[in-house]
Order: sequence, then C-alpha cells, then structure tokens
Amino acid sequence: MFNLLKKQKIISLTTDFGVQTRGIGIMHGTIMKLCPDAKVIDLMHGIPDFDLITGARALETVYDLPIGCHVCVIDPGVGTERRGIIIQTTRGDYLIGPDNGVLLPATKFLNGIKKIVKITNTKYMNNPVSPIFHGRDVFAPAAAHLLNGVNIKEFGSELKEEELVKAPYDEASLKEDSINTIKATIIDVNKFGSFHLNINHETFDTFLTRNERKLGDKLILLFRKKKLLVTIANTFGEVARGKELIMKDDYGRVEVAINQGSFIARHKVKVGDKVTIKA
Amino acid sequence: MFNLLKKQKIISLTTDFGVQTRGIGIMHGTIMKLCPDAKVIDLMHGIPDFDLITGARALETVYDLPIGCHVCVIDPGVGTERRGIIIQTTRGDYLIGPDNGVLLPATKFLNGIKKIVKITNTKYMNNPVSPIFHGRDVFAPAAAHLLNGVNIKEFGSELKEEELVKAPYDEASLKEDSINTIKATIIDVNKFGSFHLNINHETFDTFLTRNERKLGDKLILLFRKKKLLVTIANTFGEVARGKELIMKDDYGRVEVAINQGSFIARHKVKVGDKVTIKA
Amino acid sequence: MFNLLKKQKIISLTTDFGVQTRGIGIMHGTIMKLCPDAKVIDLMHGIPDFDLITGARALETVYDLPIGCHVCVIDPGVGTERRGIIIQTTRGDYLIGPDNGVLLPATKFLNGIKKIVKITNTKYMNNPVSPIFHGRDVFAPAAAHLLNGVNIKEFGSELKEEELVKAPYDEASLKEDSINTIKATIIDVNKFGSFHLNINHETFDTFLTRNERKLGDKLILLFRKKKLLVTIANTFGEVARGKELIMKDDYGRVEVAINQGSFIARHKVKVGDKVTIKA
Repeated sequence: MFNLLKKQKIISLTTDFGVQTRGIGIMHGTIMKLCPDAKVIDLMHGIPDFDLITGARALETVYDLPIGCHVCVIDPGVGTERRGIIIQTTRGDYLIGPDNGVLLPATKFLNGIKKIVKITNTKYMNNPVSPIFHGRDVFAPAAAHLLNGVNIKEFGSELKEEELVKAPYDEASLKEDSINTIKATIIDVNKFGSFHLNINHETFDTFLTRNERKLGDKLILLFRKKKLLVTIANTFGEVARGKELIMKDDYGRVEVAINQGSFIARHKVKVGDKVTIKA
Repeated sequence: MFNLLKKQKIISLTTDFGVQTRGIGIMHGTIMKLCPDAKVIDLMHGIPDFDLITGARALETVYDLPIGCHVCVIDPGVGTERRGIIIQTTRGDYLIGPDNGVLLPATKFLNGIKKIVKITNTKYMNNPVSPIFHGRDVFAPAAAHLLNGVNIKEFGSELKEEELVKAPYDEASLKEDSINTIKATIIDVNKFGSFHLNINHETFDTFLTRNERKLGDKLILLFRKKKLLVTIANTFGEVARGKELIMKDDYGRVEVAINQGSFIARHKVKVGDKVTIKA
Repeated sequence: MFNLLKKQKIISLTTDFGVQTRGIGIMHGTIMKLCPDAKVIDLMHGIPDFDLITGARALETVYDLPIGCHVCVIDPGVGTERRGIIIQTTRGDYLIGPDNGVLLPATKFLNGIKKIVKITNTKYMNNPVSPIFHGRDVFAPAAAHLLNGVNIKEFGSELKEEELVKAPYDEASLKEDSINTIKATIIDVNKFGSFHLNINHETFDTFLTRNERKLGDKLILLFRKKKLLVTIANTFGEVARGKELIMKDDYGRVEVAINQGSFIARHKVKVGDKVTIKA
C-alpha cells in the first residue's frame, strides 16, 4: 500500500465551492507549489453549501480512486474552534479536512481507521493562515506535505475516534429482533431525481436473503406518512416507465428511483429524510 | 501517428454528467489506476442529458486535440443490449463509447474509419461491471488499456460500419440538381444563442462559389415556416447590432447568429430543427 | 525566478466560457500539442460574460499560483482591431490576453510590470487564426511557446504601459487631505452574497491605524444614497447573525459581508458600484 502511494502522488478534492469559483484553482496551485509531481483529481465540487451529509456521501466514493490523499472542504465551522484533522485509513489513504464528521463515513469503505491526528503544526501550513480558507492554507498543504514524505505524526498530536465529532449519518444495520425492517436515511439525491440510502450492498443482500426476497419482488417503503411498494431491480429498464424501483447503486449504496422519472419530484423527499424499508 | 500517440497518452472525456457530479472524478481515478501516465482532458461534460446530436457535435471537435483516446458517455441505452464499441480512425485516434451513433460524426473530421470492434472482453473491464455506469467500468478502462499498448483486436470481434446504429445526423451536402439550396439540421446551440449547422466549411465555400455569393451578400434561411435574410460574414462585428449573420464557426461548421443578440430567443429554434439555405 | 518557471511549466486559464463548454478542453488540447509537459490549472471559468472587472479581479489571485503563464480570455472585442498582448511581470510570470485592461490589476500583485509586447508574429499562432477564438489560436499557443523557451521579444514589438487600454478599475488609495475617507469600487461579489472592494490589505491597515480604528469598532459605508454602520472583524463569527461586517478577504482585498446572510440581496449592490468608507 505504501509503495502504491509513493508511486503515484494522488490528491483528490471534494468541496462545496461550486465549479465556477477560483478557490479550486488556487488549491491546485497551492499543491503544485509544494509537491510539483502530485496529480490532482477534482472528485466533486458541487456539494450544496455546508451540506455535510451529501459531502460525506461523495467522499465515500474515493474507494474507487487510487490510494492517495483525499481533501474534503465542507466546512461551515471554519473560523471557529473546530479542529482540522488527518485520518489515516487501513487501505493506506489519508482523509484530510475539518473535524465535523464529514470524513468518517468514507473510512468504512477504506477498511477502517488506522490513526487520527489533529493538524496543529504551523510548519506545514501556509502562513499566515486565513481564518476563512483552510482549504488553501491548512488542508491542501497537509496533503502535499504527506505526499512529500512528512510523517503523519509531524502534523500534531493523536486523537481517538471517540474524541471526534460524530458522522452526519450512521450505517443502517439489521436488527436481530426485527429482521424484516431496515431504518435508513437519505444521504444523497442525484440530478435525475433518484435518492440513495445509508445501506451498503452487503447489508441489502443479507436483508433480501433473510426475507426471501429476490429481483422482481416488491418491498414496502415508509416515509413522510406515505407507504409505497417498490420493485427490487438491477437497473431502471426492469420496471415499466414511471414505476418505482429499488436497486444497488454504482457506489456501494442502495438507490430508489423511478424509471425515466424523478422520485424526488413526485414524492417530495430530501437529503436527511428517514425512510423505513419493510419486506 | 502511432508514435505521436505513444509519446503522449491523451484521453479526452465528453459526457452528459454535468460538472457537479462525482462521475467525472471517478473516471479520472479509474484511468489513473490503470494508466498512471495518461493525461486526461475534460472536453465537455455539459451536454444536455441523453442529447446525442449535441454530444456527437461536441465530439467532432476532438480533431483540435492531440491524437488520443476519446471517450464519449452519452448513453441513454446503458443497461440494455446496446453494444460498447471502439472506432479506430485514420488519423490514429480511438473513439470509445456506446454504439448509438454518437461517435460517428467525429470520424469525418479524423480522416475516416480504419477499424471498429465491439467491446466484449471482460479482461479489460472493471468487474463486476455496473449495469448503469459503463463510463467507469467499460469505456474509461478501454482507453487506459489501449494507451498501455493493448491491441484493439483484443477487445472483441470486428464490426462493419453498416452494422452500427446510424449517426444522429448526416453531413449536409450539395445536390447537383439543385445547387442553390442546402438542406441542413441544427446540431448545436451555444450560450450566446447562436446555432450551428451540419454543413462543413468546404461544402459552404463550394455553395457560395457556385452561387456567386461573397462576404456581405445575403442568403435566405427557411425554418419553421419563416423566411429570413441573413448576411454572409466572417465575424459578428460585420453586421449591425441586432442583425442576423451566417459564418464559418470555430470548429469546422456553419454558424447562424445575431450580433450581440440571441437568435434562439428571437426565432425559437432548437437542436434537431431543419433549416434550408437558399442562395 | 527564471529557474522556477523552467522547473514547472505552469499555465493557468481564466475565462468567461463557463465550465460546460468545449472551449476550455480545446485550449488544454492546444497546449498539450505544443508543450506536452505543461501543467494547466483552470483558475476560473465562471466569470460573467464579458465582465472585465470580475475577470481582472479573478486574475489578481494568480499571485497564489506558482510562477507561470496566466492566460485570460475575457474578450468582448475579439474580431475587432483590439491587440493581443503579453505582460512580463517582475515576479517572473507572463500575463497573456487581450489589451482591454483585464490583465493590468494583477500586475500590482506580481511586483509590477517588466515588459509588454504586442502579439503579432503569426509563427507562434495556430493558423489560420479564427476571428472569434483567440484563446485557442493566439493566447494559449503564446503561453505554450513561452514555456518552450521562445523569448518574449519574438512575439512582436514592445509596448509601453501608457499605450495600453486602461484597467477596468484603479487601486483605491488614501488621500492626504482626507484621511478619514476611502472612495472604493465593488470589484467582485461571491456566491454567499458578500462583495469585495479595490482596497488592498496594506491600504486598509494604514486607514485603520491613521483613524485609530481596531477590531470590533465600526466604520461608515456610503453607497446608493444609503449610510450603514459595519463592524471591523477578522471573520464572520465575530458579529451576530444577520449583522454587517468588513474584513480583509482571502485574496488581498477588503470584503463586506453579513454573517450567515447575503449583503447583495439585502442592500442591492453590484459589481462596479461605488462605495465610500468613512472612519
């Protein structure tokens, strides 16, 4: 793992800056100054302002990127006392950003947490540090210095996971006393009007197996006082146009959609809403 | 040509994902994992959803990029039986994407088609292949493997051009029995409200010469039961503010515009509309 | 400085193309063809159409990028007789774009102007040059050739600063006969609804010192026949939610904002408006 990280110096950026601002270009430039051979991947800059749930969900998908340093700047608390942190994962990545929970869900997709440090060593910051742009002055420099070989211990003292601000959502799990039910949260909506739940593929498969449900069968969705039947599918075309379906999405989660339609528009749900699935 | 492709490993990406999604970043990451020395150019990600005409038009402009692998993911049929294909061009490029016609118009700008194969060899895919994201699991990997030296024949069996789904538009051409007329299709509109036709520069020049029309002369445009005189120009400033003009655009096609105004807004035309030009 | 530029071949791009067009990708491709080892940073492509003030302001922030070639294509006069120019700065950068004033404010942040040339040598252009896309055919090629070692003198004859079209805004300065007043111009607004003034940090600090104002004190803002008290702060959280503040921004200028609110929406100001600050 270490060698892979050495071979290619990958930094990914995930922010709520929007793509039309200079903030992203400036972070690229900051990295180029400190680590000229880094390769920067813009993972996603269209996170809604300050939306920790959608941001955490986007960051989960770095498991599909090469092992590297993944910087996430969704930072409503910048300028306050909130900490900056680096999380080293078991896969070998470094997640870098504010201690507001946004980095945590991704660790589940990267084989867990190996070490956490608080970023306090000003030697590895752009000084003077702006009170409002830690992406440029703290987080991007940390990524560049890590790729240059600076040890994570040099950035500050170690933290324990339980000292961190909690994740904006948990993993949905199966309860032994109620195997026909999963209580979930909407963690993302996409431009086609589908939504995604905090249920991973393994949990969903286990749920279907235990309840003897298979492709083409129906599940019950409960949300906002509504009750709706949705068809278990592999892809959109397996249900009629305008019909609801539930399937595994492209990034390790469960998606609910309407074939050639918008679930969001029809049923008025949004990120953060609770959804209960019953077999 | 071959050497040029070897020297620089260029991959361009053209999609309808929009720039605010993680799909683009994930395709970059997929390429970095398989071919670390590839250089990825984002040609255009703002194609309207599923718009094959605008997508095919955007892809035409790769003739202005270095010779390389050009991936196009405008793919309304993903998850169905539609084929994935690679088209090798005479210039030396590889066009990679769904067999829905979107790749074909670009071949006219790249000196024609040399070979076509169907992508079926799972050895060169990310497995398991998602039923809804072939950009990541089939097309981007194909580009990376081609740049790594895998021969096009390794991806699957050869197809003939006549076996492919047709292009979303043809080349407008001059009819010998009606030299004062060109029947054309709108293949693009831009943010300033101009539109572009499926007429290439050579055809337009021949049309003007045969009909003895020159800069400053007028042509007749027929569309949506309207008849309109437009001035032949080289650039906007050659007609008065608010006046219509017709000229060669920046990417090998013919553009119709209003100087400092929006043709689209004034005359209510859209991509796919038919336009007849008369001398 | 020269060596730094040699070591890393940085080109930044700032345009009003918007991120959803192929123009940006084509400029990347043009650069890759001429200078394969260049690294291209997209500084900002979301400048409002033809907005020279916002564009000039965005370009100022290249001082935060590595020394390099900075191309700016905000070019309402393309196709007319306006000149294309290269400005060499004392820091070692090259600013490349139209002679319409947009390049000038950035020179103040790059230690001033060393040399200016008019781009006329067609040897370093993509021929034939399009009358409407000099970004591709004149400016991007100039950047690539400079990084390849072509001397600035080769591009055309030298110009003096006073021969150039003036900057779209001046630097706000302190008048000796009226030390409690600064007359300023709004040069940028951001997505949160704050605005930025043409006052640099040093001028602002001097103004506060001379007038014995410090953090937490108030200043008077005069604009659009309104008079408003704003609090001097370091960051948003130092005033109550919904209150106005004035502070140094992240890119060398002075920002006026509302904590967790939009100044623009509440007070109806826009880029180009005059604002007078009184102590």
